Amino acid sequence: MGDVKFSFQLLDKGNPVFSAFIMWASVLTIKFLLMSTLTAIHRYRSKTAASPEDMAMMRVTELTTNEEVDRVKRAHLNDMENILPFLSVGLFYVLTDPSAMVAIWLFRVTTVARFVHTFVYAIYVVPQPARAICFFTHFGITFYMAFMSILYFI
Amino acid sequence: MGDVKFSFQLLDKGNPVFSAFIMWASVLTIKFLLMSTLTAIHRYRSKTAASPEDMAMMRVTELTTNEEVDRVKRAHLNDMENILPFLSVGLFYVLTDPSAMVAIWLFRVTTVARFVHTFVYAIYVVPQPARAICFFTHFGITFYMAFMSILYFI
Amino acid sequence: MGDVKFSFQLLDKGNPVFSAFIMWASVLTIKFLLMSTLTAIHRYRSKTAASPEDMAMMRVTELTTNEEVDRVKRAHLNDMENILPFLSVGLFYVLTDPSAMVAIWLFRVTTVARFVHTFVYAIYVVPQPARAICFFTHFGITFYMAFMSILYFI
Repeated sequence: MGDVKFSFQLLDKGNPVFSAFIMWASVLTIKFLLMSTLTAIHRYRSKTAASPEDMAMMRVTELTTNEEVDRVKRAHLNDMENILPFLSVGLFYVLTDPSAMVAIWLFRVTTVARFVHTFVYAIYVVPQPARAICFFTHFGITFYMAFMSILYFI
Repeated sequence: MGDVKFSFQLLDKGNPVFSAFIMWASVLTIKFLLMSTLTAIHRYRSKTAASPEDMAMMRVTELTTNEEVDRVKRAHLNDMENILPFLSVGLFYVLTDPSAMVAIWLFRVTTVARFVHTFVYAIYVVPQPARAICFFTHFGITFYMAFMSILYFI
Repeated sequence: MGDVKFSFQLLDKGNPVFSAFIMWASVLTIKFLLMSTLTAIHRYRSKTAASPEDMAMMRVTELTTNEEVDRVKRAHLNDMENILPFLSVGLFYVLTDPSAMVAIWLFRVTTVARFVHTFVYAIYVVPQPARAICFFTHFGITFYMAFMSILYFI
Protein backbone atom coordinates (compact mmCIF):
# COMPACT_ATOMS: atom_id res chain seq x y z
CA MET A 1 0.00 0.00 0.00
CA GLY A 2 2.89 2.33 -0.84
CA ASP A 3 0.81 5.21 -2.16
CA VAL A 4 -1.51 5.52 0.84
CA LYS A 5 -2.10 9.13 1.67
CA PHE A 6 -5.09 9.14 3.98
CA SER A 7 -5.74 6.85 6.96
CA PHE A 8 -9.30 6.08 5.82
CA GLN A 9 -7.95 4.52 2.60
CA LEU A 10 -6.76 1.63 4.81
CA LEU A 11 -10.40 0.83 5.67
CA ASP A 12 -10.95 -1.06 2.45
CA LYS A 13 -11.70 -4.62 1.42
CA GLY A 14 -8.65 -4.36 -0.86
CA ASN A 15 -6.41 -3.94 2.20
CA PRO A 16 -5.65 -7.50 3.39
CA VAL A 17 -4.97 -6.29 6.96
CA PHE A 18 -8.40 -4.64 7.17
CA SER A 19 -10.25 -7.61 5.67
CA ALA A 20 -8.44 -10.02 7.98
CA PHE A 21 -9.30 -7.87 11.00
CA ILE A 22 -13.03 -7.69 10.16
CA MET A 23 -13.12 -11.43 9.54
CA TRP A 24 -11.32 -12.51 12.73
CA ALA A 25 -13.11 -9.89 14.84
CA SER A 26 -16.44 -11.26 13.54
CA VAL A 27 -15.33 -14.83 14.33
CA LEU A 28 -14.43 -13.73 17.87
CA THR A 29 -17.80 -11.98 18.23
CA ILE A 30 -19.66 -15.15 17.25
CA LYS A 31 -17.54 -17.09 19.73
CA PHE A 32 -18.39 -14.45 22.35
CA LEU A 33 -22.14 -14.63 21.61
CA LEU A 34 -22.09 -18.42 21.88
CA MET A 35 -21.04 -18.06 25.54
CA SER A 36 -24.65 -16.98 26.25
CA THR A 37 -25.88 -20.15 24.57
CA LEU A 38 -23.42 -22.25 26.57
CA THR A 39 -24.63 -20.59 29.78
CA ALA A 40 -28.24 -21.33 28.80
CA ILE A 41 -27.42 -24.99 28.11
CA HIS A 42 -25.80 -25.39 31.54
CA ARG A 43 -28.71 -23.55 33.21
CA TYR A 44 -31.23 -25.95 31.65
CA ARG A 45 -29.25 -29.07 32.37
CA SER A 46 -28.69 -28.13 36.00
CA LYS A 47 -32.10 -26.41 36.41
CA THR A 48 -30.39 -23.22 37.63
CA ALA A 49 -32.73 -20.26 37.08
CA ALA A 50 -31.18 -16.83 36.49
CA SER A 51 -34.12 -14.89 37.88
CA PRO A 52 -37.29 -15.72 39.90
CA GLU A 53 -39.57 -15.41 36.83
CA ASP A 54 -37.56 -18.16 35.09
CA MET A 55 -38.47 -20.76 37.71
CA ALA A 56 -41.85 -21.62 36.16
CA MET A 57 -40.30 -22.18 32.73
CA MET A 58 -37.64 -24.43 34.31
CA ARG A 59 -40.13 -26.17 36.60
CA VAL A 60 -38.12 -25.45 39.73
CA THR A 61 -39.32 -23.86 42.95
CA GLU A 62 -36.14 -22.20 44.20
CA LEU A 63 -33.12 -20.25 42.97
CA THR A 64 -29.93 -22.27 43.19
CA THR A 65 -26.35 -21.87 42.03
CA ASN A 66 -24.35 -24.38 40.05
CA GLU A 67 -20.59 -24.70 39.68
CA GLU A 68 -20.76 -25.41 35.91
CA VAL A 69 -22.97 -22.33 35.31
CA ASP A 70 -20.63 -20.17 37.39
CA ARG A 71 -17.63 -21.49 35.47
CA VAL A 72 -19.14 -20.58 32.09
CA LYS A 73 -20.09 -17.15 33.47
CA ARG A 74 -16.48 -16.58 34.58
CA ALA A 75 -15.26 -17.52 31.09
CA HIS A 76 -17.88 -15.19 29.56
CA LEU A 77 -16.81 -12.31 31.82
CA ASN A 78 -13.18 -12.92 30.88
CA ASP A 79 -14.18 -12.75 27.21
CA MET A 80 -15.86 -9.40 27.89
CA GLU A 81 -12.72 -8.06 29.52
CA ASN A 82 -10.59 -9.14 26.58
CA ILE A 83 -12.51 -9.63 23.33
CA LEU A 84 -14.57 -6.42 23.55
CA PRO A 85 -11.59 -4.01 23.80
CA PHE A 86 -9.91 -5.95 20.97
CA LEU A 87 -12.87 -5.19 18.65
CA SER A 88 -12.00 -1.48 18.91
CA VAL A 89 -8.24 -1.57 19.35
CA GLY A 90 -7.72 -3.98 16.46
CA LEU A 91 -9.33 -1.40 14.20
CA PHE A 92 -7.09 1.37 15.57
CA TYR A 93 -4.10 -0.87 14.88
CA VAL A 94 -5.23 -1.42 11.26
CA LEU A 95 -5.13 2.38 10.90
CA THR A 96 -1.42 2.43 11.82
CA ASP A 97 -0.74 0.67 8.49
CA PRO A 98 1.17 -2.27 10.03
CA SER A 99 3.10 -4.96 8.16
CA ALA A 100 0.44 -7.24 6.63
CA MET A 101 2.21 -10.43 7.63
CA VAL A 102 2.69 -9.37 11.26
CA ALA A 103 -0.85 -8.00 11.61
CA ILE A 104 -2.62 -10.99 10.05
CA TRP A 105 -0.69 -13.47 12.20
CA LEU A 106 -1.47 -11.45 15.32
CA PHE A 107 -5.20 -11.61 14.46
CA ARG A 108 -5.00 -15.37 13.91
CA VAL A 109 -3.02 -16.13 17.06
CA THR A 110 -5.20 -13.92 19.26
CA THR A 111 -8.38 -15.59 17.94
CA VAL A 112 -7.02 -19.09 18.55
CA ALA A 113 -5.86 -18.02 22.04
CA ARG A 114 -9.40 -16.97 23.03
CA PHE A 115 -10.95 -20.19 21.67
CA VAL A 116 -8.44 -22.31 23.58
CA HIS A 117 -8.99 -20.12 26.67
CA THR A 118 -12.69 -20.97 26.69
CA PHE A 119 -12.02 -24.63 25.96
CA VAL A 120 -9.62 -25.13 28.88
CA TYR A 121 -11.73 -22.94 31.20
CA ALA A 122 -15.32 -23.92 30.52
CA ILE A 123 -15.51 -27.01 28.29
CA TYR A 124 -12.80 -29.45 29.33
CA VAL A 125 -10.94 -28.12 32.36
CA VAL A 126 -7.16 -28.32 31.89
CA PRO A 127 -4.82 -27.54 34.84
CA GLN A 128 -3.03 -24.20 34.95
CA PRO A 129 -1.01 -22.61 33.42
CA ALA A 130 -3.02 -23.57 30.26
CA ARG A 131 -5.61 -20.85 30.83
CA ALA A 132 -3.01 -18.29 31.93
CA ILE A 133 -0.98 -18.81 28.73
CA CYS A 134 -4.06 -18.26 26.55
CA PHE A 135 -5.04 -15.21 28.57
CA PHE A 136 -1.61 -13.57 28.33
CA THR A 137 -1.28 -14.30 24.60
CA HIS A 138 -4.42 -12.31 23.77
CA PHE A 139 -3.70 -9.75 26.51
CA GLY A 140 -0.18 -9.11 25.19
CA ILE A 141 -1.34 -8.74 21.60
CA THR A 142 -4.16 -6.31 22.51
CA PHE A 143 -1.73 -4.34 24.68
CA TYR A 144 0.79 -4.20 21.81
CA MET A 145 -1.89 -2.98 19.36
CA ALA A 146 -3.01 -0.23 21.75
CA PHE A 147 0.62 0.79 22.33
CA MET A 148 1.39 0.93 18.59
CA SER A 149 -1.77 3.01 18.04
CA ILE A 150 -0.61 5.52 20.66
CA LEU A 151 2.85 5.77 19.08
CA TYR A 152 1.39 6.31 15.61
CA PHE A 153 -1.34 8.83 16.48
CA ILE A 154 0.39 10.79 19.26
CA MET B 1 -24.71 3.48 -4.10
CA GLY B 2 -24.04 1.82 -7.48
CA ASP B 3 -20.64 3.37 -8.11
CA VAL B 4 -19.04 2.45 -4.76
CA LYS B 5 -15.49 1.35 -5.29
CA PHE B 6 -13.92 1.48 -1.84
CA SER B 7 -15.34 0.16 1.45
CA PHE B 8 -14.60 3.42 3.28
CA GLN B 9 -16.93 5.30 0.94
CA LEU B 10 -19.78 3.54 2.77
CA LEU B 11 -18.79 5.37 5.98
CA ASP B 12 -20.60 8.52 4.99
CA LYS B 13 -23.56 10.51 6.24
CA GLY B 14 -24.93 10.27 2.68
CA ASN B 15 -25.18 6.47 3.07
CA PRO B 16 -28.56 5.85 4.78
CA VAL B 17 -27.37 2.51 6.21
CA PHE B 18 -24.36 4.15 7.88
CA SER B 19 -26.38 7.08 9.27
CA ALA B 20 -29.05 4.73 10.60
CA PHE B 21 -26.41 2.55 12.25
CA ILE B 22 -24.72 5.48 14.02
CA MET B 23 -28.08 6.83 15.18
CA TRP B 24 -29.47 3.54 16.55
CA ALA B 25 -26.11 2.53 18.02
CA SER B 26 -26.03 5.88 19.85
CA VAL B 27 -29.59 5.37 21.09
CA LEU B 28 -28.61 1.93 22.39
CA THR B 29 -25.52 3.41 24.08
CA ILE B 30 -27.64 6.00 25.90
CA LYS B 31 -30.03 3.22 26.95
CA PHE B 32 -27.00 1.23 28.16
CA LEU B 33 -25.60 4.19 30.12
CA LEU B 34 -28.97 4.77 31.79
CA MET B 35 -28.70 1.30 33.38
CA SER B 36 -26.06 2.81 35.71
CA THR B 37 -28.55 5.51 36.68
CA LEU B 38 -31.27 2.93 37.25
CA THR B 39 -28.91 0.94 39.47
CA ALA B 40 -28.09 4.11 41.43
CA ILE B 41 -31.79 4.91 41.92
CA HIS B 42 -32.47 1.41 43.29
CA ARG B 43 -29.38 1.59 45.51
CA TYR B 44 -30.57 4.85 47.07
CA ARG B 45 -34.17 3.75 47.53
CA SER B 46 -33.16 0.49 49.16
CA LYS B 47 -30.08 1.95 50.91
CA THR B 48 -27.84 -0.72 49.35
CA ALA B 49 -24.24 0.53 49.33
CA ALA B 50 -21.92 -0.75 46.58
CA SER B 51 -18.73 -0.35 48.59
CA PRO B 52 -17.86 0.30 52.28
CA GLU B 53 -16.94 3.96 51.59
CA ASP B 54 -20.47 4.58 50.27
CA MET B 55 -22.10 3.76 53.61
CA ALA B 56 -21.56 7.24 55.10
CA MET B 57 -23.12 8.95 52.08
CA MET B 58 -26.11 6.60 52.31
CA ARG B 59 -26.32 6.79 56.11
CA VAL B 60 -26.19 3.06 56.58
CA THR B 61 -23.88 1.06 58.81
CA GLU B 62 -23.67 -2.23 56.94
CA LEU B 63 -23.39 -3.65 53.43
CA THR B 64 -26.57 -5.37 52.33
CA THR B 65 -27.92 -6.84 49.12
CA ASN B 66 -31.25 -6.09 47.54
CA GLU B 67 -33.23 -8.10 45.00
CA GLU B 68 -34.20 -5.02 42.94
CA VAL B 69 -30.57 -3.86 42.73
CA ASP B 70 -29.43 -7.35 41.74
CA ARG B 71 -32.14 -7.53 39.09
CA VAL B 72 -31.04 -4.25 37.47
CA LYS B 73 -27.43 -5.43 37.62
CA ARG B 74 -28.37 -8.64 35.80
CA ALA B 75 -30.14 -6.61 33.09
CA HIS B 76 -27.08 -4.32 32.86
CA LEU B 77 -24.73 -7.29 32.50
CA ASN B 78 -26.96 -8.75 29.79
CA ASP B 79 -26.79 -5.41 27.96
CA MET B 80 -23.00 -5.58 28.17
CA GLU B 81 -22.99 -9.08 26.68
CA ASN B 82 -25.22 -7.99 23.80
CA ILE B 83 -25.18 -4.24 23.11
CA LEU B 84 -21.39 -3.81 23.29
CA PRO B 85 -20.52 -6.39 20.57
CA PHE B 86 -23.32 -4.91 18.41
CA LEU B 87 -21.59 -1.49 18.49
CA SER B 88 -18.64 -3.03 16.63
CA VAL B 89 -20.32 -5.70 14.53
CA GLY B 90 -23.04 -3.36 13.27
CA LEU B 91 -20.28 -1.21 11.78
CA PHE B 92 -18.64 -4.25 10.14
CA TYR B 93 -22.03 -5.12 8.67
CA VAL B 94 -22.42 -1.59 7.25
CA LEU B 95 -19.14 -2.21 5.42
CA THR B 96 -20.61 -5.24 3.62
CA ASP B 97 -22.86 -2.80 1.71
CA PRO B 98 -26.14 -4.53 2.67
CA SER B 99 -29.59 -3.76 1.28
CA ALA B 100 -30.63 -0.45 2.89
CA MET B 101 -34.15 -1.62 3.70
CA VAL B 102 -33.00 -4.85 5.34
CA ALA B 103 -30.18 -3.18 7.29
CA ILE B 104 -32.23 -0.26 8.59
CA TRP B 105 -35.06 -2.55 9.75
CA LEU B 106 -32.56 -4.82 11.50
CA PHE B 107 -31.16 -1.79 13.38
CA ARG B 108 -34.67 -0.69 14.40
CA VAL B 109 -35.84 -4.13 15.51
CA THR B 110 -32.67 -4.86 17.45
CA THR B 111 -32.92 -1.54 19.29
CA VAL B 112 -36.57 -2.09 20.23
CA ALA B 113 -35.74 -5.65 21.34
CA ARG B 114 -33.13 -4.38 23.84
CA PHE B 115 -35.47 -1.70 25.23
CA VAL B 116 -38.25 -4.26 25.73
CA HIS B 117 -35.72 -6.70 27.22
CA THR B 118 -34.84 -4.19 29.93
CA PHE B 119 -38.48 -3.28 30.49
CA VAL B 120 -39.64 -6.86 31.08
CA TYR B 121 -36.51 -7.74 33.07
CA ALA B 122 -35.89 -4.74 35.32
CA ILE B 123 -38.81 -2.30 35.21
CA TYR B 124 -42.07 -4.24 35.13
CA VAL B 125 -41.35 -7.96 35.38
CA VAL B 126 -43.23 -9.96 32.74
CA PRO B 127 -43.21 -13.80 32.87
CA GLN B 128 -41.04 -15.74 30.48
CA PRO B 129 -40.68 -16.19 27.52
CA ALA B 130 -41.01 -12.37 27.13
CA ARG B 131 -37.38 -11.78 28.09
CA ALA B 132 -36.11 -14.79 26.12
CA ILE B 133 -37.83 -13.57 22.92
CA CYS B 134 -36.23 -10.10 23.24
CA PHE B 135 -32.86 -11.66 23.98
CA PHE B 136 -32.93 -14.00 20.97
CA THR B 137 -34.14 -11.26 18.60
CA HIS B 138 -31.09 -9.10 19.27
CA PHE B 139 -28.83 -12.15 19.59
CA GLY B 140 -29.95 -13.50 16.21
CA ILE B 141 -29.50 -10.17 14.46
CA THR B 142 -26.00 -9.62 15.88
CA PHE B 143 -25.07 -13.19 14.97
CA TYR B 144 -26.37 -12.65 11.41
CA MET B 145 -24.38 -9.41 11.03
CA ALA B 146 -21.17 -11.09 12.22
CA PHE B 147 -21.79 -14.00 9.88
CA MET B 148 -22.43 -11.74 6.87
CA SER B 149 -19.24 -9.79 7.69
CA ILE B 150 -17.22 -13.02 7.67
CA LEU B 151 -18.70 -14.07 4.32
CA TYR B 152 -17.97 -10.67 2.76
CA PHE B 153 -14.43 -10.15 4.05
CA ILE B 154 -13.13 -13.74 4.00
CA MET C 1 -11.37 21.15 7.75
CA GLY C 2 -13.56 23.58 5.80
CA ASP C 3 -13.71 21.57 2.58
CA VAL C 4 -14.80 18.25 4.10
CA LYS C 5 -17.36 16.63 1.87
CA PHE C 6 -17.52 13.02 3.06
CA SER C 7 -17.71 11.76 6.66
CA PHE C 8 -14.91 9.23 6.09
CA GLN C 9 -12.47 12.04 5.30
CA LEU C 10 -12.59 12.84 9.04
CA LEU C 11 -11.04 9.41 9.76
CA ASP C 12 -7.54 10.62 9.01
CA LYS C 13 -4.31 11.12 10.93
CA GLY C 14 -4.34 14.68 9.59
CA ASN C 15 -7.58 15.37 11.52
CA PRO C 16 -6.44 16.35 15.05
CA VAL C 17 -9.77 15.25 16.57
CA PHE C 18 -9.44 11.76 15.07
CA SER C 19 -5.79 11.37 16.10
CA ALA C 20 -6.56 12.57 19.63
CA PHE C 21 -9.46 10.13 19.90
CA ILE C 22 -7.40 7.12 18.79
CA MET C 23 -4.60 8.08 21.17
CA TRP C 24 -6.76 8.64 24.28
CA ALA C 25 -8.97 5.65 23.48
CA SER C 26 -5.82 3.50 23.29
CA VAL C 27 -4.56 4.93 26.59
CA LEU C 28 -7.92 4.08 28.20
CA THR C 29 -7.76 0.57 26.73
CA ILE C 30 -4.32 -0.02 28.25
CA LYS C 31 -5.62 1.30 31.58
CA PHE C 32 -8.58 -1.09 31.23
CA LEU C 33 -6.35 -4.07 30.43
CA LEU C 34 -4.16 -3.32 33.46
CA MET C 35 -7.18 -3.92 35.72
CA SER C 36 -6.75 -7.64 34.94
CA THR C 37 -3.15 -7.38 36.08
CA LEU C 38 -4.18 -5.54 39.25
CA THR C 39 -6.74 -8.26 39.98
CA ALA C 40 -4.06 -10.93 39.47
CA ILE C 41 -1.68 -9.12 41.85
CA HIS C 42 -4.33 -8.97 44.57
CA ARG C 43 -5.29 -12.61 43.97
CA TYR C 44 -1.67 -13.73 44.44
CA ARG C 45 -1.04 -11.57 47.49
CA SER C 46 -4.19 -12.72 49.23
CA LYS C 47 -4.04 -16.28 47.83
CA THR C 48 -7.57 -15.95 46.42
CA ALA C 49 -8.05 -18.45 43.60
CA ALA C 50 -10.53 -17.59 40.81
CA SER C 51 -11.33 -21.18 39.95
CA PRO C 52 -10.71 -24.61 41.54
CA GLU C 53 -7.95 -25.49 39.05
CA ASP C 54 -5.98 -22.40 40.19
CA MET C 55 -5.61 -23.70 43.74
CA ALA C 56 -2.60 -25.91 42.98
CA MET C 57 -0.73 -23.02 41.33
CA MET C 58 -1.48 -20.80 44.34
CA ARG C 59 -0.78 -23.56 46.86
CA VAL C 60 -4.10 -23.19 48.60
CA THR C 61 -6.65 -25.89 49.36
CA GLU C 62 -9.89 -23.92 49.33
CA LEU C 63 -11.67 -21.16 47.40
CA THR C 64 -11.93 -17.96 49.42
CA THR C 65 -13.02 -14.40 48.76
CA ASN C 66 -11.05 -11.28 49.57
CA GLU C 67 -12.28 -7.72 49.98
CA GLU C 68 -9.33 -6.22 48.02
CA VAL C 69 -9.91 -8.61 45.08
CA ASP C 70 -13.64 -7.82 45.10
CA ARG C 71 -12.90 -4.10 45.17
CA VAL C 72 -10.64 -4.30 42.09
CA LYS C 73 -13.27 -6.44 40.35
CA ARG C 74 -15.93 -3.79 41.06
CA ALA C 75 -13.64 -1.10 39.59
CA HIS C 76 -12.97 -3.33 36.57
CA LEU C 77 -16.70 -3.89 36.02
CA ASN C 78 -17.31 -0.15 36.27
CA ASP C 79 -14.62 0.37 33.62
CA MET C 80 -16.41 -2.12 31.37
CA GLU C 81 -19.70 -0.27 31.79
CA ASN C 82 -18.07 3.05 30.90
CA ILE C 83 -14.82 2.73 28.92
CA LEU C 84 -16.08 0.12 26.45
CA PRO C 85 -19.07 2.17 25.14
CA PHE C 86 -16.77 5.20 24.94
CA LEU C 87 -14.48 3.32 22.50
CA SER C 88 -17.35 3.20 20.00
CA VAL C 89 -19.24 6.40 20.78
CA GLY C 90 -16.10 8.55 20.76
CA LEU C 91 -15.57 7.45 17.16
CA PHE C 92 -19.19 8.30 16.24
CA TYR C 93 -18.64 11.73 17.81
CA VAL C 94 -15.48 12.27 15.71
CA LEU C 95 -17.68 11.69 12.64
CA THR C 96 -19.94 14.64 13.63
CA ASP C 97 -17.00 16.95 12.84
CA PRO C 98 -16.98 18.65 16.26
CA SER C 99 -14.92 21.69 17.26
CA ALA C 100 -11.33 20.43 17.66
CA MET C 101 -10.75 22.30 20.92
CA VAL C 102 -13.95 21.03 22.55
CA ALA C 103 -13.48 17.46 21.35
CA ILE C 104 -9.83 17.13 22.35
CA TRP C 105 -10.49 18.55 25.85
CA LEU C 106 -13.42 16.15 26.29
CA PHE C 107 -11.12 13.22 25.42
CA ARG C 108 -8.49 14.44 27.89
CA VAL C 109 -10.91 15.09 30.75
CA THR C 110 -12.74 11.79 30.29
CA THR C 111 -9.45 9.86 30.31
CA VAL C 112 -8.25 11.58 33.49
CA ALA C 113 -11.65 10.99 35.11
CA ARG C 114 -11.39 7.22 34.57
CA PHE C 115 -7.81 7.08 35.91
CA VAL C 116 -8.81 9.00 39.04
CA HIS C 117 -11.93 6.81 39.37
CA THR C 118 -9.79 3.68 39.59
CA PHE C 119 -7.30 5.37 41.92
CA VAL C 120 -9.91 6.45 44.49
CA TYR C 121 -11.84 3.17 44.13
CA ALA C 122 -9.21 0.46 44.00
CA ILE C 123 -5.77 1.84 44.84
CA TYR C 124 -6.06 4.37 47.65
CA VAL C 125 -9.67 4.54 48.84
CA VAL C 126 -10.92 8.13 49.11
CA PRO C 127 -14.33 8.87 50.72
CA GLN C 128 -17.30 9.70 48.51
CA PRO C 129 -18.18 11.77 46.54
CA ALA C 130 -14.68 11.45 44.97
CA ARG C 131 -15.63 8.34 43.03
CA ALA C 132 -19.08 9.64 42.12
CA ILE C 133 -17.60 12.85 40.63
CA CYS C 134 -15.19 10.85 38.45
CA PHE C 135 -17.98 8.52 37.39
CA PHE C 136 -20.37 11.31 36.39
CA THR C 137 -17.65 13.25 34.53
CA HIS C 138 -17.01 10.36 32.15
CA PHE C 139 -20.68 9.35 32.11
CA GLY C 140 -21.78 12.89 31.16
CA ILE C 141 -19.20 13.19 28.39
CA THR C 142 -20.07 9.80 26.86
CA PHE C 143 -23.78 10.69 27.10
CA TYR C 144 -23.13 14.04 25.39
CA MET C 145 -21.15 12.36 22.57
CA ALA C 146 -23.93 9.82 21.95
CA PHE C 147 -26.52 12.61 21.99
CA MET C 148 -24.56 14.75 19.51
CA SER C 149 -24.13 11.71 17.24
CA ILE C 150 -27.90 11.15 17.20
CA LEU C 151 -28.57 14.82 16.36
CA TYR C 152 -26.03 14.78 13.53
CA PHE C 153 -26.98 11.46 11.91
CA ILE C 154 -30.75 11.47 12.48
